[in-house]
Formats: sequence, structure tokens, C-alpha cells
Amino acid sequence: MTKANTLGETEDLQENLRRLTHLLHKHKLVEGLVHTQQMPRQELVEALVHKQNLAELQNLLDRLHPADVAHILEAMPLEDRLMIWELVKAERDGEILLEVSDAVRETLIATMDSGEMLAATGQLDADEIADLAPDLPRDVMEDVFQSLPMEEREQLRAAMSYPEDAVGALMDFDVVTIREDVTLEVVLRYLRRLDELPDHTDQLFVVDRDEHLKGVLPVNRLLVSDPDATVGSVMAKEMVKLHPSDNAHQAAQAFERYDLVSASVVNAEDKLIGRVTVNAVMDFIREQAESEALNLAGLREEEDLFAPVWKSLKNRWTWLAINLVTAFIASRVIGVFEDSIEKLVALAALMPIIAGIGGNSGNQTITMIVRALALGQLNAGNARKLFAKEIGVSAVNGVVWGSVVGLFAFFIYGSGSLGLVMTLAMMLNLLLAALLGVLIPLTLHKLGRDPAAGSSVMITAVTDSGGFFIFLGLATLFLV
Amino acid sequence: MTKANTLGETEDLQENLRRLTHLLHKHKLVEGLVHTQQMPRQELVEALVHKQNLAELQNLLDRLHPADVAHILEAMPLEDRLMIWELVKAERDGEILLEVSDAVRETLIATMDSGEMLAATGQLDADEIADLAPDLPRDVMEDVFQSLPMEEREQLRAAMSYPEDAVGALMDFDVVTIREDVTLEVVLRYLRRLDELPDHTDQLFVVDRDEHLKGVLPVNRLLVSDPDATVGSVMAKEMVKLHPSDNAHQAAQAFERYDLVSASVVNAEDKLIGRVTVNAVMDFIREQAESEALNLAGLREEEDLFAPVWKSLKNRWTWLAINLVTAFIASRVIGVFEDSIEKLVALAALMPIIAGIGGNSGNQTITMIVRALALGQLNAGNARKLFAKEIGVSAVNGVVWGSVVGLFAFFIYGSGSLGLVMTLAMMLNLLLAALLGVLIPLTLHKLGRDPAAGSSVMITAVTDSGGFFIFLGLATLFLV
Repeated sequence: MTKANTLGETEDLQENLRRLTHLLHKHKLVEGLVHTQQMPRQELVEALVHKQNLAELQNLLDRLHPADVAHILEAMPLEDRLMIWELVKAERDGEILLEVSDAVRETLIATMDSGEMLAATGQLDADEIADLAPDLPRDVMEDVFQSLPMEEREQLRAAMSYPEDAVGALMDFDVVTIREDVTLEVVLRYLRRLDELPDHTDQLFVVDRDEHLKGVLPVNRLLVSDPDATVGSVMAKEMVKLHPSDNAHQAAQAFERYDLVSASVVNAEDKLIGRVTVNAVMDFIREQAESEALNLAGLREEEDLFAPVWKSLKNRWTWLAINLVTAFIASRVIGVFEDSIEKLVALAALMPIIAGIGGNSGNQTITMIVRALALGQLNAGNARKLFAKEIGVSAVNGVVWGSVVGLFAFFIYGSGSLGLVMTLAMMLNLLLAALLGVLIPLTLHKLGRDPAAGSSVMITAVTDSGGFFIFLGLATLFLV
Repeated sequence: MTKANTLGETEDLQENLRRLTHLLHKHKLVEGLVHTQQMPRQELVEALVHKQNLAELQNLLDRLHPADVAHILEAMPLEDRLMIWELVKAERDGEILLEVSDAVRETLIATMDSGEMLAATGQLDADEIADLAPDLPRDVMEDVFQSLPMEEREQLRAAMSYPEDAVGALMDFDVVTIREDVTLEVVLRYLRRLDELPDHTDQLFVVDRDEHLKGVLPVNRLLVSDPDATVGSVMAKEMVKLHPSDNAHQAAQAFERYDLVSASVVNAEDKLIGRVTVNAVMDFIREQAESEALNLAGLREEEDLFAPVWKSLKNRWTWLAINLVTAFIASRVIGVFEDSIEKLVALAALMPIIAGIGGNSGNQTITMIVRALALGQLNAGNARKLFAKEIGVSAVNGVVWGSVVGLFAFFIYGSGSLGLVMTLAMMLNLLLAALLGVLIPLTLHKLGRDPAAGSSVMITAVTDSGGFFIFLGLATLFLV
């Protein structure tokens, strides 16, 4: 019995290793590092698979970057994931938890006791703990607070007080500050006394006694300037200053436009309280793009690939329910015209064409407008021009595609008047799609709502019900 | 007459200024810079509007960052855009052309003669000229080549030889190289002889006589280490090395995972040929996310907001044509069952519900799978698990939503058997959606195609035609 168990375990391990190898292999997991001086990872893992050695697997995991371990964990079904998670050295738990997706983080934290969670946060900075905080139990967070020195406790409290899309949530506190009146030589000596500089230190922040931000000294300028010059004479006085309550989206735009690596964050009194770095911004941009793509498809949030069925359902139901309601409405619109359909059954076969193409065209318009709104390129001044353009596009589309579907109807059913009704309905539905494709996102924007979130459902609802109504209505008037 | 003209021009100018103010105002154009030491931009522009002074508008434009000028140009209707473009100092043309979207760049270049284009490229590095090259006439590019010194000519040729999604297209040539055997003191003195360091210089590249890359010296390490130490003893030997033919998508993943600011690019002989910086990567990520969003909505490429109608049509027609074909097919599927619909007209009103919800559910599945494929999280090992999960989700959805639509049909039409057929059809179509929602992207991926591009059209086509067939087929079997 014991033997069988041992064997079974070995097989499990082998299977896990096989998967890990496969992952590392096939999906070129650590692409960026493949060309390092090290022994290539794949050979390493193959060797491990041969020896079937748990200790070496652990060894390999220890040598992987936390982000790579996170990636492996995300790609593993639950039981394998937890097995790998057990092998990861405890002192790296915190860093890895930071890197995994929210959904996967939940599954990992579920296996940890309070002590382990507390230990995991012990390796992290205040701003990083703030990122984990929503997933930790309240009593653990209280212990975490107690364990921090006063300054970090204040930082953690500050970092946790900002909504996810505020600059405060992207901010860290790793700023190196210097005074205006010292020479660069002094700065260089001061830096040499430090063990290391914080990641992404491309500039030092020049502050006065009260922490007011006076300027920034780019490291590149420090390196090329005369060491006898003073900081004040070399520093840049024009700089990007963010406020913790600023919208993170706008901070990201500043990073993209001005090619920043870091930017200062100051409070209302212009005192330096932290900085934002490009890696935090890049993560933010990626997350925004992802959640936009997910929302478009009707997924509420990122889903653990191997989430249990009921969790997936929760993630998907809101959208399906909303769509069901719009489908019911469209169905009742058709229901009104059942007499006409009974008399001319071709209408039933043709009506989805009108609705479908209208929806496609409307979604094209909406995507354009939502994008222009996000980039701040739309305003009262040019909205009219845009409106005219979209109407023009839909008019041409109406004539062209309307004729195509009209001919289709004529060839299938041999009725010229049916073809004409088809053409007219197509033109009108495309016009409706263009009108509302501009109006819906503009209105949502004016009401302070996110136009990206609901526009697509609404336009589809309108072009479906509207398309059915226009086509069946025209047919009832002219054909039946 | 002259007076009227002058007046007219003044009014135009005023209108332009009004719009510019409005833009700067309302859309907080230069968000990141709003908190600089400068006089706030809005007041400045308001003052300008009062004076109606062309020279001052020009002055303002000259003081804006090229990226901000680019943004203003993108948000302006064509005639205003070209008016602003005329005011921009010629020596900034190149930088601004780099920042505007492809579509807008085309409109700006159309107003320039060969001499102006040549002058614009004169301010740019080889890698930047390569970005503009596709939009410049062939004869201008030949002049550009002639005007470059030998080394840059080679760089330009190299940069132009890579496809848009290769590391080579993101690469620049601004590398600072040092030797292994010198002390840090010597490095510091060497740097001080330079006027400035290239942007985003977070590390110096350590090469031997033949340009072989031996390691990197992070600037932060240079600053904290003993000046008497040699480069060889301080440098990092483990580093990310990219090859110019590597996929840019994977380079971007490396930047995101390892929080890089720059990374070396080496050729097959391990010789340093350039570097990639985080700002190029961030632009790439943004462009990728944008073009994905556009493609999803059926737009071939980014559109100039104020593009003429015919240009917009070209951008949108492929998608509409494909959808029309799938709509025709669905229409013919319905056509087969016209007899049944004639006998039981309720079928016409109910059938769009089955098709619609199937399409929504299928798109949810596809989005999950496409995302997992893009992140390299899907492989032969876990595909089966994922398949099982999606089938599970669709089974529960089928029972729940199937019952809801069944009840809906029962209450509207008072027929229990019609309700049952509705429920059964919904279950089957959701199952079909789940099956193909997994299979379509996996198959496209296996064939080496981009699963994000065509998956959504295909699943909708299947759930439409399939949904109609299943529902009408079942109804014909059991009800008619």
C-alpha cells in the first residue's frame, strides 16, 4: 500500500514535470531569458525529468523569476498549481502573489494560514502590500499593520485609501531625495553610501527641508555634468508632477507621450509623497486593455482558466441576462408582425440579414467614437463634423449593401417589390445604426458613464429590434 | 475685397483658437504637465484668443511637446489640421510626424514637397526614419539614403528590413558601450566627456573589441559601487538578450515580466547591434491593443477621425461583406424551414433568441481561449481540462437559460411543447457554442493563424445558422 502510494506520487511528479517541461518548451515561457549566458533552461528541465528529482524541481523554481513562477502557476490546473505552490520557497510567496492574476491569487491564498500570509507580506513594500490587501482576511491585515514600522504603516494606509484607477494606487514610496544647495560630487558620494538604488531610479528628487519638490536631477545629467556644479544649477525645474487623486489613465497618457521612466507624486501642498514608475504604468495599461476586451465579450472580470464551473457562471451571467432581455424585446417586436409573416413567410428568412448588418455597422461606428472619446479627441466643436461623416458613410453603405440584399431577395423569391423593401429597410437601419452609434457613446460620456462598457449591447439591441420593426413594418405597409 | 478676406481669415483663426482652447481646456490635453512651474497653459491660450495673435499661437505650438502637437493635429478636422501644421516650425516636423497616427500622418505628408520631407527626416535617427519610411515616396527615401553618413545608412537599411512585429522594428542604435577591464572611475570620466546620454540609458553595454556583448553595467550599480572596482567585477553577466528577428510580442512580455527599461539586441554572433527601450515597447503594446479592439469591431485599421467618407468605407467594407455572406447563409437555413414557419408563425419570433444567446455565450468562451493562447497558457496537457470546463459551463447555462426561454415561450404562446422545444434548442445551441468556442481558436492557432482575428465572426456564423437549424429542425420534428 505504501509502495503504491509512493509510486503514485512519483508518477504525479513525473506528470507535473512533463507538463512543466512542456510549458517551458512549447510556449517558450522565459523567452526573454533564453539567450542568457546560463545553461539553457530546457536542457536543464529535461535533465530534471530524467532524474525525477523533487529537490531539483524546487531548485529550478527557486531560480526562476517570480513573474515566471506566477506564469507557470496560472497555466496549471488547480491540483498541479497547488503542488508547485508548495514547492516555492516561503520567502518568495509575497513577490509571486503580486504577479499572479487576481483569480489565481485567490486560489493560492486559500491554501495559506494566517502565519504564512503575514510572512509573505513581510517581504513586501507598503505599496505592494496595498495591492494584496483586498485578497487578505481582515484579521491578517490587522496583524500586518501591527508588524509594520510607523512610517510604512502610514504609507500602507495612504496606498489603500485610493481607488484602483487613481495615481495613488500606482504610486510607490522609493524616492531618493537630495538638497538643492549641495554639489554633484556630494550627491555622488551620498549615493555611494547606499547599498543599491531603488529600481527605475532615473532621477533624484530635489526637495527643501519641508519636502517641497523643487526640481528633479536626472541621473543621466548627474553623470555627464561637472561634479563641482550644484544640484540647483543642473536640476530640471520643469517636470511632470502627479497628484495621488489624479486619474491613473491620464498619468499613463503622460508616460506614453513624454516617454517617462518615473514621475513625482506630490500632495496639495506640493510636498513630495512618492513616485510612479513606468513598470506600474505598463501593468496598468495592460490590465485596462484586458478588462476592456473582457467586458466587450461580456465577461465581468479576468477568469482563472481552471476556475470551477460555478465561478465561471457568476462571471458570465450578468451579460447573458441582459442580452436575453434585449432578445425577448426583439422577439416581441417580431410577434407584432406575425400576421404579415404568416402571409409572406419570406420575411422570416430575410429579417435577420437587416438586423445583423445593422448591428455590425453600428458597432464599427461605436468603436471609432469610443476610441476618440478615450483619447480626448472629441468635443462640441468637432462632433458635428463627425456626425456628418458617419451619416455619409452609412448612406453610401445603405445604397451599396441595400442593393446587394435587395438583389439577393429578388433572386431567391423572384419579387421585385420585396427586393425594394429589403433595400429600403437596409438603408434605414444603417442610418439608425450610424445615428445611435454616435449618440449612445456621446450621451454616456456626457452622463459621466464609461462609454466603452454598455455601448455595444445598446446599439445591438437597437439595430435588432429597430431592424425587425423597420423591415416588417415596411413589408406590412407595401407588400401584405 | 481684401478687407473681407482678411476679416474672414481672422475669423477662421479665431475659430481655430477657440477650438484649440476648447481642446486644451475641456479635454485636459497636457494633463501630465498641468502641474509644472510654467504659467498654466489654459490661461495662456485664453490670452492668445483675446489678442487673436497668429505669432503667439505659433509661439505656443513651439513650446508644446511634439506628442502634444500630434494630439492636437489628430483632433482637428482636416482644414484646421493643415492650418496648424503650417504653423509648426519646420525643424520639428519630423518628431511630430513620428507621433501622429498612420492615418493622420498621411494627410500631413500629402501637403509636403520633397524638400520638406527630406528636411523633416534630417532631424531623426535611423530607427525613426525607418518608422516613417512606408509613408514617404520612393524618390524621397532615395535622397534620404544619399544624405546619411555610411553608418546610419546601414542602420536605416537594417531597421527597414524587419517586419513591424519583429524586435528589429522596435530597436534603436543609441547604445553606450564600455570595456570590461577599465575601472568605474574611468567610466565616470568617459561619460562626463559626453554632452548627454541617450534617453532611457539605464545600463551601459560591456563589449569586447569585436563588439561581442559580455555583460551590462546598470547605471544604478555604477553609482553605488566603489570607483576603483573594474567594470568586469561589477557588471551583470545575466541579462536579457533579444535578437532582431524575435517576435516583438515576446520582447514586450519580457519587458513586462522583468520590469525592464532597456534590453540589448544582439545578432547571431552575439555582437551588440542595438537596444530596445521601454517607451518603444509601451507604444507597441498600445498599438497592439488598439488594433485588436479595432479588428474585433471589424475595422481594418485605425481611422483618421475626419477621414473622407470613401476612405472610411474602404476600412469597413471587408468585414461587412463577410458578415453579409454569413447572414445570407443563415437566411437560407431559415428558408429551408419556411413551410414549418408558415404553419407555426411563433417560430419566426422565437428563433432570434436561440441564435443570439448562443452567439453571446460562444463569444465569451472564445475570448477566454484567445486570451489564454496569447499568454501561452494553453497546451495539449491542459486543453482537455479546459474543454471539460467549458462544456460544464454551457450545460448549466443550457439548463438555466433554456428553462427561462422555455417559460417565456410557454407564457407568450401558451404551448408547453413549444416551450420544451425552445429549452432543448437552447441547450443544444449553447453546447455547440462551447464546443466551437474552444475548437475554432485552437485550430486557427494550430494552423499558425491569429486566433483573435477571425474567431468571433466564425462563432457567430455557426451559432446563427446552427441555432436556426437546431430550433427549426426540432420544431419541424416535434411540433409541425
